[in-house]
Amino acid sequence: MTRVAIQGEAGSFSHAAAIAVFGPDTRIVACVTFEDLFRAVEKDDADRGLVPIENTLAGSVHENYDLLSAHSLHVVGETALRIRHCLVARPGGTLGDIGRVASHPVALAQCRRFFTEHPALLAVPAYDTAGSVHDLMAGTLAADAAIASALAARLYGAAVLAEGLEDHPENYTRFLVVAREPVPVWGASKMSLVFTLPNTPGALHRALRVFAARDLNLTKIESRPLPGRPWEYLFYLDVAGDALESTHDALRELRTFAPMLRVLGVYPDRAALSAATATHS
Amino acid sequence: MTRVAIQGEAGSFSHAAAIAVFGPDTRIVACVTFEDLFRAVEKDDADRGLVPIENTLAGSVHENYDLLSAHSLHVVGETALRIRHCLVARPGGTLGDIGRVASHPVALAQCRRFFTEHPALLAVPAYDTAGSVHDLMAGTLAADAAIASALAARLYGAAVLAEGLEDHPENYTRFLVVAREPVPVWGASKMSLVFTLPNTPGALHRALRVFAARDLNLTKIESRPLPGRPWEYLFYLDVAGDALESTHDALRELRTFAPMLRVLGVYPDRAALSAATATHS
Repeated sequence: MTRVAIQGEAGSFSHAAAIAVFGPDTRIVACVTFEDLFRAVEKDDADRGLVPIENTLAGSVHENYDLLSAHSLHVVGETALRIRHCLVARPGGTLGDIGRVASHPVALAQCRRFFTEHPALLAVPAYDTAGSVHDLMAGTLAADAAIASALAARLYGAAVLAEGLEDHPENYTRFLVVAREPVPVWGASKMSLVFTLPNTPGALHRALRVFAARDLNLTKIESRPLPGRPWEYLFYLDVAGDALESTHDALRELRTFAPMLRVLGVYPDRAALSAATATHS
Repeated sequence: MTRVAIQGEAGSFSHAAAIAVFGPDTRIVACVTFEDLFRAVEKDDADRGLVPIENTLAGSVHENYDLLSAHSLHVVGETALRIRHCLVARPGGTLGDIGRVASHPVALAQCRRFFTEHPALLAVPAYDTAGSVHDLMAGTLAADAAIASALAARLYGAAVLAEGLEDHPENYTRFLVVAREPVPVWGASKMSLVFTLPNTPGALHRALRVFAARDLNLTKIESRPLPGRPWEYLFYLDVAGDALESTHDALRELRTFAPMLRVLGVYPDRAALSAATATHS
């Protein structure tokens, strides 16, 4: 059974993503921080780690970009999970019984319209979505309901009173799967890499041309500051393409002028995974 | 007297930046949130707004990128402020009297080595750097000292016991100056713009080529999610160059394939401002 490190409690959206990728019997290793998650995989306390890297409303999770650089794990897969917020109450509860609704502030912020349409409900910030459901059922939550995943409701024996509370239905989180060792990939694939560039005009354009000239598609670019080097950056790219030879060529050319270049991983691209995601979600 | 909207209290690093740009007699308009700051300039409650946009250790302030898009203010200037953390106590206090040191969690995180070297001191999270000094002098702080700017110590009549507490001396925050109306610029300049791109291979490379082909230097790239369009992005660029005609040409070409393009502002580049910054800091 695959042991998968996630940040957060059982029933979190990371847990739902782990089930989507590894199946319902996945053994999760719950970690308090993202740093703990990376360490759990490094120390072999888990076989894989599931790292949220971007959300289609909130943007990149920059802490996890920094952790990919600081640790030497390999990206071996990715998945995207639709984030569907549910109103979760004790079994037998109804909307009329509810005054206070607890959840993580990010989840509350994504459900503003629901609170506008239900002025009798008060949003109460809490430390975690799934943790709020746990506390609700344990009788220690300072609220009558929680906003969390359907998985959290199922795990803790609570009831889902309403689904799809989020303002924007196009709310997805993309997760990377990380491991101690790379996994060989055949066919269509994606590559994640990080590099620095000389501080000269046109350097970033030159780096992107390396891929564009070979018809390799750039699906994401992210920059992070280089500590100790003001106004210089680490660039993170995701590149998609099915021509392995072109990719190797591109990296060879980029290495001729990038002071630092590291391939974070090569993995099947999400298109191949999306059917599996739909089945389990 | 220029009225400058800042986020935070008098004595904050934003206040120090306002003094560096507009002089010691600047009248600050203190705002609770960044959204309030943008609104204050829009409603003419302030002539200028000072918006922190990136820090050389922590990276971009993504909320402010989003606010630049959501509002229609113009970027009319920029400055960079060296962030120097001071240990601030009541007048007459000494290091030996101090047990608890309060500050904003980001400031505490930037001074980890100082706490390691002084194991008798306990770091206590507070809501604000300058606010901690205010509360220290008012006798309402649950600590004996604060970490804040030298300006905060001066404003509230406190004493600086130690300077340069930060782990990394290369700790700068770049601020943008925003206004209701654009300001004409002569000579060397920078341009900030935001655009979307068609979701096709090579589109970002093509956009950057528009500038590289004209020897215009790209000093910063940032991407933010496009709400409702999963895996598509808003791109923010800063472009430096002294050839106005080339810049206009580049924009004309970019407009032929960018579905959305907005120039956020044209302003003198920081090189021209750095002398002024040094004088006041």
